[in-house]
Amino acid sequence: MLPFIRSDLAQLVAYTPHPGSTVQGSTPSVPVQVVDRLDTNESPYDLPPELKQKLAWLYQNELEANRYPDGGHQQLKRAIAHYANISAQTLWVQPENITVGNGSDELIRSLLIATCLGGEGSILVADPTFSMYGITATTLGVSVHSVGRDEGTFAIDVEAANQILNGAPQPAVRLLFVVHPNSPTGNALTPAEIDWLRHVPESVLVVIDEAYFEFSGTSLLTEMPQHPNWVILRTFSKAFRLASHRVGYAISHPELVATLDKIRLPYNLPSLSQSAALLALEHAPNLLEVIGTITAERDRLYQALQQCPSLQVWPSAANLIFARLTPEAVAQSAQSAEEAAIALFQSLKTQGTLIRYIAGGFRITVGTPEENQRTLTRLTATLQRLSLAK
Amino acid sequence: MLPFIRSDLAQLVAYTPHPGSTVQGSTPSVPVQVVDRLDTNESPYDLPPELKQKLAWLYQNELEANRYPDGGHQQLKRAIAHYANISAQTLWVQPENITVGNGSDELIRSLLIATCLGGEGSILVADPTFSMYGITATTLGVSVHSVGRDEGTFAIDVEAANQILNGAPQPAVRLLFVVHPNSPTGNALTPAEIDWLRHVPESVLVVIDEAYFEFSGTSLLTEMPQHPNWVILRTFSKAFRLASHRVGYAISHPELVATLDKIRLPYNLPSLSQSAALLALEHAPNLLEVIGTITAERDRLYQALQQCPSLQVWPSAANLIFARLTPEAVAQSAQSAEEAAIALFQSLKTQGTLIRYIAGGFRITVGTPEENQRTLTRLTATLQRLSLAK
Repeated sequence: MLPFIRSDLAQLVAYTPHPGSTVQGSTPSVPVQVVDRLDTNESPYDLPPELKQKLAWLYQNELEANRYPDGGHQQLKRAIAHYANISAQTLWVQPENITVGNGSDELIRSLLIATCLGGEGSILVADPTFSMYGITATTLGVSVHSVGRDEGTFAIDVEAANQILNGAPQPAVRLLFVVHPNSPTGNALTPAEIDWLRHVPESVLVVIDEAYFEFSGTSLLTEMPQHPNWVILRTFSKAFRLASHRVGYAISHPELVATLDKIRLPYNLPSLSQSAALLALEHAPNLLEVIGTITAERDRLYQALQQCPSLQVWPSAANLIFARLTPEAVAQSAQSAEEAAIALFQSLKTQGTLIRYIAGGFRITVGTPEENQRTLTRLTATLQRLSLAK
Repeated sequence: MLPFIRSDLAQLVAYTPHPGSTVQGSTPSVPVQVVDRLDTNESPYDLPPELKQKLAWLYQNELEANRYPDGGHQQLKRAIAHYANISAQTLWVQPENITVGNGSDELIRSLLIATCLGGEGSILVADPTFSMYGITATTLGVSVHSVGRDEGTFAIDVEAANQILNGAPQPAVRLLFVVHPNSPTGNALTPAEIDWLRHVPESVLVVIDEAYFEFSGTSLLTEMPQHPNWVILRTFSKAFRLASHRVGYAISHPELVATLDKIRLPYNLPSLSQSAALLALEHAPNLLEVIGTITAERDRLYQALQQCPSLQVWPSAANLIFARLTPEAVAQSAQSAEEAAIALFQSLKTQGTLIRYIAGGFRITVGTPEENQRTLTRLTATLQRLSLAK
């Protein structure tokens, strides 16, 4: 190992990014296969053609490729504050409550840097949850405390979490990450969990990741003014259909926002990404109209998957569904639980349905009605073929 | 101060980003003024219309806004490796020697994270130099050792640097940053400095920032295979005219590259930024044709500024020129050196020439011939008016 690399980084397993080229045949002789990309919780819908045309026109005629982007983000912050207020029928959000990142990923990193570096803090997560919290913490040498969730409801093991918070670990917990609703399991925070968050000590910053908020329709934004130790993360990568542009934002106390703005890379957002986010907000009602279709499809998918006796399926408030093979189905397969699950995952992948194998189960993004129909057809047939259906 | 924010961040002064809106009149009643933006060392030339049109077409017709970008960057890494080999007439650079960042800024941060966090290292810089090394280190709680430069040539005070390297500071120096050629002063590394870098201990990673390499035409790339503790940074923001897209890259040993790839945000580069960098490389000979004009303009500007007796001007190998008011001019102005310099800077700004006041002097980006002519006219007239011309 090169002597200047931190020794603790050798073991680190990085986040596996999306392959990014699943629609293109990588070998010219192999025919291009249409793949249903249901593994990263994107919206299945691209921007409407008129918005793409407008952005293309803007790029060609108004943006200067040779000039650094606006590093102050003032216009975007104003538009986000306005949307945030409308989204939760509040009035308190101002531009100084907003900071913008290269996806929420950059904000997660900035939050860790702002609170935990230099041995000043550790983080607490409830697994299974979004893996980037733990991975990013580890890249920064920050310790990760993890508690479990109820296997039936995926509610956080609050008692275990309190034991850690009150147990005065060294270094102290400075960041607590929750997703509302959670990924990969789809459950929104319960009233009891929210009440717990209200009483987390003020020395702990509570990160409420509302990446899927537009699908759940519930937000903790209205309560934020009472909690200077809360920060909400949101993204343009899901409901707003801008994953390719990498724009996320945080809403919090102006002092935390100012600190995050100091920490971020000064030109973190390409010019066209800023324009795309602004245009998406301008057309928010139009872009979000399809949410109803996606959540109806989610519920249809949930109902249909529940009919598979070999699957345990959880209700979801996001644009994803989590399912696991039942112990009975695994027993019948004469394989280990992991082998059986991977066999199912691989078979679906070969057929052109890409889902995520995670937390001992499957996270299935809700796609277009056609994609969801293919998911159901392929899944049920594959369960039969692999002798996983009772 | 909020109790979960690191106490050492309170004092941090962030990098001042480009205002980003200097061509737009911010108040509608004020007429829009054309501003010569000569403060961030951008290329004065946008992409040719046919390339912008092609990227706009690609965005509108082929890129999916709703899909995460390619997180693996394989195609871009291959194209960069090819260009790197051509750029220095080498053959050794392979895709596994390349990692790509959201500008060089992200790579600077990743290098600091890879080597110095957790109290494992400190950094060494020679001031004046690019301020982001020190600022980014400070956001991460990493100590910065700084040595000076010769006031006549801006050569690094190698003796002072060796004293720090050999003095076994706690924590040890793990990163040494040099820019080749340097910003804000424009000087390329001398043969003596390069020889010094060859003998830096292997436990220190030497970062050679070649952001301006296309203007200087000199690179240390050919020597890299002999130095596993060297890393070269380059960018598409300068000669390749893509500052708005935020793409930088690092060339180094595959083990360091793999570590940097683990640390970076998994989807750090928007899809169109990747497409733009690929297209720019495809058209590199065309885009770089204008380098000759820029360096000829730089030399013309240098010659002309040398005629101002109240300015000390340094020769430059980059697309910028560094100058300071002479002590005699300051004395004549009946102001402090800082007051006199700021008065000059502000006056130029009011007239529409935006340069950078830095390191007790002025960093002036080489613009178009028309911009450079305005710089000269305004600068000489302003020196007269402010009684700064002898």
